[in-house]
Amino acid sequence: MSKQQVQWAALPSPTPDLLPLCVLIATEPGSGPSAEPEKQEVKQEVVVNAPEPPDRSRMSSALSFGVLYLLALVLGLACVGGVCFWSSHWHGGFAWGGSALQFNWHPVLMVTGLVVLYGCGAVVYRIPLTWGQDKLPWKRLHAALMLLALVLSIVGLRAVFEVHDAENIPKLYSLHSWIGITTAALFATQWVVGVAGFLLPCSPMALRRLLKPAHVLLGGSIVTLSVAASVSGINEKLIFALGKGPPPRYKDLPPEAVFGNSLGVLIVAFGVLVFLMLSNPKWQRPDSAPERTYSPLLQDESE
Amino acid sequence: MSKQQVQWAALPSPTPDLLPLCVLIATEPGSGPSAEPEKQEVKQEVVVNAPEPPDRSRMSSALSFGVLYLLALVLGLACVGGVCFWSSHWHGGFAWGGSALQFNWHPVLMVTGLVVLYGCGAVVYRIPLTWGQDKLPWKRLHAALMLLALVLSIVGLRAVFEVHDAENIPKLYSLHSWIGITTAALFATQWVVGVAGFLLPCSPMALRRLLKPAHVLLGGSIVTLSVAASVSGINEKLIFALGKGPPPRYKDLPPEAVFGNSLGVLIVAFGVLVFLMLSNPKWQRPDSAPERTYSPLLQDESE
Repeated sequence: MSKQQVQWAALPSPTPDLLPLCVLIATEPGSGPSAEPEKQEVKQEVVVNAPEPPDRSRMSSALSFGVLYLLALVLGLACVGGVCFWSSHWHGGFAWGGSALQFNWHPVLMVTGLVVLYGCGAVVYRIPLTWGQDKLPWKRLHAALMLLALVLSIVGLRAVFEVHDAENIPKLYSLHSWIGITTAALFATQWVVGVAGFLLPCSPMALRRLLKPAHVLLGGSIVTLSVAASVSGINEKLIFALGKGPPPRYKDLPPEAVFGNSLGVLIVAFGVLVFLMLSNPKWQRPDSAPERTYSPLLQDESE
Repeated sequence: MSKQQVQWAALPSPTPDLLPLCVLIATEPGSGPSAEPEKQEVKQEVVVNAPEPPDRSRMSSALSFGVLYLLALVLGLACVGGVCFWSSHWHGGFAWGGSALQFNWHPVLMVTGLVVLYGCGAVVYRIPLTWGQDKLPWKRLHAALMLLALVLSIVGLRAVFEVHDAENIPKLYSLHSWIGITTAALFATQWVVGVAGFLLPCSPMALRRLLKPAHVLLGGSIVTLSVAASVSGINEKLIFALGKGPPPRYKDLPPEAVFGNSLGVLIVAFGVLVFLMLSNPKWQRPDSAPERTYSPLLQDESE
């Protein structure tokens, strides 16, 4: 190819808004990874496919993420506050020991753990402000948030199981319970495999590379499942709570029905925001962000 | 930068499995888009970040998509067959005219339209076999499948509204109905804006570029919403159908309960498969795929 003119070209990319994919960057002589740097000398900086300055594009992207993230935090807090208010205002508050009040922990802990904390943990790597920092502390935060979410979910499941035992109601019969228990089981598996695959020092890099796409995709799928479980659970609870006794019933839309339905809508909106933050390729942590490389535990699998 | 050694580097990419992002390709002198091609001469072919041959990687990616796509088609057919069997075997089949049998069209048409046909329409551009072909016919197929899905959903909503009118039951009171009607409204808006923005000849390219990310992300969000609406709807119907009358009740898990719950699980599995096909960046139609450029109607907005 000597004496031929050549051009750098980006391969087909599914993320056109991430362009420019290629830039020419200056390095000190001999510092680059190239085997023959002297053969790649050029005389001027070239930017290929650069519709706007990268800094401006990144700033705008980080800003829009920040707005969505803040909105998700507000929605998440509203979901937790809302489910606590629903249980305490219309259903007598909280207790343990197999009483009917113990059931009230179930929606509170599932929404707090499996929806809100899970969603906040899932988007940790998407926060642009963290990209300039070492990934390991954020990986530990991701694992810690998910562990807290998992523990709350397990206690939430125990709450309803014990009430069903105490009141002699069969367990795991409704579609809500089937979807909910599947979601919790997938979440637990995901957490155990995630810690073993990405945090244990003995986990080889090849395994990490293999696991990462599955971890990301299963993590996103769990958001959909937890939203479906929450919506069906709130709907079921409102049918049971407002289906007997004196009017008004669920179909008359008394204040509890409007509040519960609105809580379900908030949960769906929170799930959609998490989905948006996970899906937009602009908000995926760049693989070139700082990473430690001196031991498998501290290595980053993102290359 | 003259006299400095330089290196080509890929900017941080969120899709490491799509690498190599940059290749050096040969062109005839003066044929490239660069204004000063003579300043970009290099002496050898360089491939940056190329862990495996692109053809092999693409073949493997297309194969894994094919397996998921076939599985989704089988699951989708099972969902449609299952909801038809549920309505006909346990609820007396189908009729129109405000009778109770008219309700049976509701789950059948919503699952067929808003879940299965919607999901099939959403992944049309992801089919790797179509990437060698002009995009316009696939765009028309995408719009046509979505129109059919929308029409079935609207008829499905009309079915339940008329039954509620005939039986003097309030409409849109449950969380299921709130999520369902929101999903249908977003879907209708998405379809109208999609046709106006991407198919009408008068739609400018700048508008298409602006709309595309929102269209893709809202389209993915609707999958989560339709799954949540379906799961809560099946759960609600099973509670109503098996909550009164002689045992066995829902909590005793009679055959209808097991069948309905399994149908809900199939719908969730179908939704997760669609989510996976939409989310994996490997399966996004490359922007370099063939496109017509001689009129706005036939132009492609993907650049």
